Amino acid sequence: MNKKHLMSLAFDLASKGGSKTFPNPNVGAIIYKDGKIIGKGFHRFFGDHHAEIHALNEAGENAKESMMFVTLEPCSHYGKTPPCVDAIIKAGVKKVFIAMKDPNPLVSGNGIKKLISANIQVEVGLLEKKAKKFYQDYSKRFTKKTSFVSLKYAMTLDGKIATSTGDSKWISSEKSREWVHKFRTQFDGILVGVNTIIKDNPELTSHGKGKNPVRIILDPDLIIPLNSKVIKDENPTVIIHSNIKSEKIKRLQKHNKFLIYIKSKNGLIDFRKILDELRRISIFSVLIEGGGFTNWSALKSGVVDEIVTFVSPKIVGGKNSITPVEGEGIQKISKALKTKITRFEKIGEDILIISKVIKNE
Amino acid sequence: MNKKHLMSLAFDLASKGGSKTFPNPNVGAIIYKDGKIIGKGFHRFFGDHHAEIHALNEAGENAKESMMFVTLEPCSHYGKTPPCVDAIIKAGVKKVFIAMKDPNPLVSGNGIKKLISANIQVEVGLLEKKAKKFYQDYSKRFTKKTSFVSLKYAMTLDGKIATSTGDSKWISSEKSREWVHKFRTQFDGILVGVNTIIKDNPELTSHGKGKNPVRIILDPDLIIPLNSKVIKDENPTVIIHSNIKSEKIKRLQKHNKFLIYIKSKNGLIDFRKILDELRRISIFSVLIEGGGFTNWSALKSGVVDEIVTFVSPKIVGGKNSITPVEGEGIQKISKALKTKITRFEKIGEDILIISKVIKNE
Repeated sequence: MNKKHLMSLAFDLASKGGSKTFPNPNVGAIIYKDGKIIGKGFHRFFGDHHAEIHALNEAGENAKESMMFVTLEPCSHYGKTPPCVDAIIKAGVKKVFIAMKDPNPLVSGNGIKKLISANIQVEVGLLEKKAKKFYQDYSKRFTKKTSFVSLKYAMTLDGKIATSTGDSKWISSEKSREWVHKFRTQFDGILVGVNTIIKDNPELTSHGKGKNPVRIILDPDLIIPLNSKVIKDENPTVIIHSNIKSEKIKRLQKHNKFLIYIKSKNGLIDFRKILDELRRISIFSVLIEGGGFTNWSALKSGVVDEIVTFVSPKIVGGKNSITPVEGEGIQKISKALKTKITRFEKIGEDILIISKVIKNE
Repeated sequence: MNKKHLMSLAFDLASKGGSKTFPNPNVGAIIYKDGKIIGKGFHRFFGDHHAEIHALNEAGENAKESMMFVTLEPCSHYGKTPPCVDAIIKAGVKKVFIAMKDPNPLVSGNGIKKLISANIQVEVGLLEKKAKKFYQDYSKRFTKKTSFVSLKYAMTLDGKIATSTGDSKWISSEKSREWVHKFRTQFDGILVGVNTIIKDNPELTSHGKGKNPVRIILDPDLIIPLNSKVIKDENPTVIIHSNIKSEKIKRLQKHNKFLIYIKSKNGLIDFRKILDELRRISIFSVLIEGGGFTNWSALKSGVVDEIVTFVSPKIVGGKNSITPVEGEGIQKISKALKTKITRFEKIGEDILIISKVIKNE
């Protein structure tokens, strides 16, 4: 077997990790010696051993004087697991083929340097073109500095997203909801407030219409129920919180959910900081499907690029019904946040309005 | 001069009353004797003498043995003024030409009968075709049993018609507001709650775009300020109230404003009763431009036929902002009032949505 073929097999292995390794990238590794593959490994889920470790474990003592094919530069720093380069050196691997350097500027090249210092032969760039495509989203983490944010809600003809009792099923027609499921596939992440999880326990998926975005739950006090669908199922979920001391952190991590801690200010988490953190885990486009308060926080922070509104021809009235954007609000109409309608059409029984937020920057 | 010509002149006079006689019909009268017009009169404004009295006053004692041409059957009952037939009899008029019987079934023919009983010659039906057209709206009062009601509001993209401080200037774009001014000309009446008058002091006219609808102010406790534009200007205003004892009644009547008393139930005036009363004064189509509470009352009573919504691409947020329909509201989305969108288009920067209320009757 030629080396390109072996690296290609490593990529096939890498792919098996799928969305379960989130937010880690998919990595595959193969150990080859005397014309035979003696070890195979891939990163199976977030918190699991890295690909190199699985492959070394399979090869055992036989790894000595072998060749390793790995899809991404082995790590040289402590993360959730000890550095892979240390294990490679210890196993006595003779030569390491690496498809691509780690694009993270803080680690890029350090793994390679450490291997070379240990007198291991290193060849970087085998199937590099394939690797660049494979790690496209992961690479963006270290280059892309902006996110695209869309805010979506369905309201009645009299401007309500839920009645005074919190009922919101269903404001928009079935066709509109199907449109939304498909629309979700265009996003890396879909963000809601924890109250939406508590009240509706939604799946927040594309319902088979395509790629599922990562669920992002804004939950400052970590009050999310552990039996929520977004916690129990296997799709990735990110929880953004401000409660560093919560004993729930460990229990959520056991469910392989990814927690991001951001300090809050007056009980509010800054949406700009949220987006900064999300870019670090390859989430560059976010669809916000929040309640009135989450939507207000996002709009106020100036991160929203576009608003997707469904207007459903129903009237519910009610002084205490819930509206799409609440919070403190703006007092003068002349100071209102302005948008420009870029598209409007009838979807099922409803009117869809898409508008671009006009930013004064 | 032939008699048709004289009756035609009476109609010309009648027209001069214009909207100022509201809710009375326009009436004109001419007194003719020995080849000369010796008296002319028309009903000039609500509360003024009737046309016949003005004409008789001008003719003076000369009215004896004259001919009178009057566009509508003279009244035989006490209204704001004594019955005209009594004055005609007293003046010694010889013959009365009447274009049309009064269509009000309670009075129709009674004036004629009284004149005949007093040995006055009466000819009914001179220029009757013209009269039927002239009194078309007035005649409807006694035949038409239904009204057409449209409810109009302009809301922000997040469903607000005013901010928490009550600011609503301007939610919709200039083009949309012009569209509304023109739209108003299609209605006999335009209805608002008294709070709109107190807060915005609007003119509620078509701003020169055509016929001005009659302003109808829903003011149960008669708290309307006497210096409001709708009270001070000369266009007709109807005030619907439930406060029979208010000392303001006389002061408002002095401004020639028309008051309608309807008993309230739990502080609410039934919109069905309002429409019944409005039909009695030739208001068969009403545009409601109310606040959240007025709109809720109208929708709840089931009188609204169509909803005209402007969605303006602005966001104001605010838990305490004002929404198009408030009041008690409906608790279950499945029980929401349903409408069907019949038209939607962009007007200026806004989206106009017109929808028909689906009535379960």
